[in-house]
Amino acid sequence: MHLSKYTDYSFRILMYLGTHEDRLVTISEVSKRYTISKNHLVKIVHHLAQAGIIKSVPGKKGGITLGKDPKKINLLDVIEITESNFDLAECFTEHGYCVIQNNCKLTKILTEALFSFFKVMGKYNLSDLLRNDQLRNQLRKMAV
Amino acid sequence: MHLSKYTDYSFRILMYLGTHEDRLVTISEVSKRYTISKNHLVKIVHHLAQAGIIKSVPGKKGGITLGKDPKKINLLDVIEITESNFDLAECFTEHGYCVIQNNCKLTKILTEALFSFFKVMGKYNLSDLLRNDQLRNQLRKMAV
Repeated sequence: MHLSKYTDYSFRILMYLGTHEDRLVTISEVSKRYTISKNHLVKIVHHLAQAGIIKSVPGKKGGITLGKDPKKINLLDVIEITESNFDLAECFTEHGYCVIQNNCKLTKILTEALFSFFKVMGKYNLSDLLRNDQLRNQLRKMAV
Repeated sequence: MHLSKYTDYSFRILMYLGTHEDRLVTISEVSKRYTISKNHLVKIVHHLAQAGIIKSVPGKKGGITLGKDPKKINLLDVIEITESNFDLAECFTEHGYCVIQNNCKLTKILTEALFSFFKVMGKYNLSDLLRNDQLRNQLRKMAV
């Protein structure tokens, strides 16, 4: 059981932007700092910008920054945007075929467990990840 | 975010065995009933047998049955046996490389969410899945 790299990288981008709120950041810079392919980041940034979580400023001196106050960027909202699905088992999918699907209690139990996972994620915002001097220092030092 | 097919199929096998506790079941039979490849099932049954959850009886009239009382087959124990890992993000893995790994609070939050998921799964046993007349009827009717 794991989250996608897409989600993992999204959190890293948001933490980077959250520790550099005083200026615009370039995707190349984030790519270098985290050693993550720029192509991956372009897609993720585009997606998060569409959701209003990242603001993209075009132009030669353009770049990206957070689109919202970190206190308003809920971690559950982020994973709901970045994870393609939460289909824990075949019975969660529209196209799944399990012969006992309609009579099985497992779906209900897995849903309860998943909601419990969501509930914890929903307690936290990006600001909770940024309230961390060690992280701030590390990411600021890394910056160009 | 999803569980492996291995886990999904494990639960289906256990539910089948749990509704046919009065006799030995063959892997071919489970394979036919669920339309799951026999090769997949052989591996899973071997794994669950090693863990004592399934009992395998060799011989011409042999087959498989539950290795324990369904009340003693905890659903969390099953997924801990069948999921290869719970590495939600790169920071959970031994070989992962995230430059902020040591200073990042996300690992702690994801772990809290994961433990919350585990806690729900740990509340239930196979017997909870079997306390279900509709499932029992369906699986009994399907039987040879």
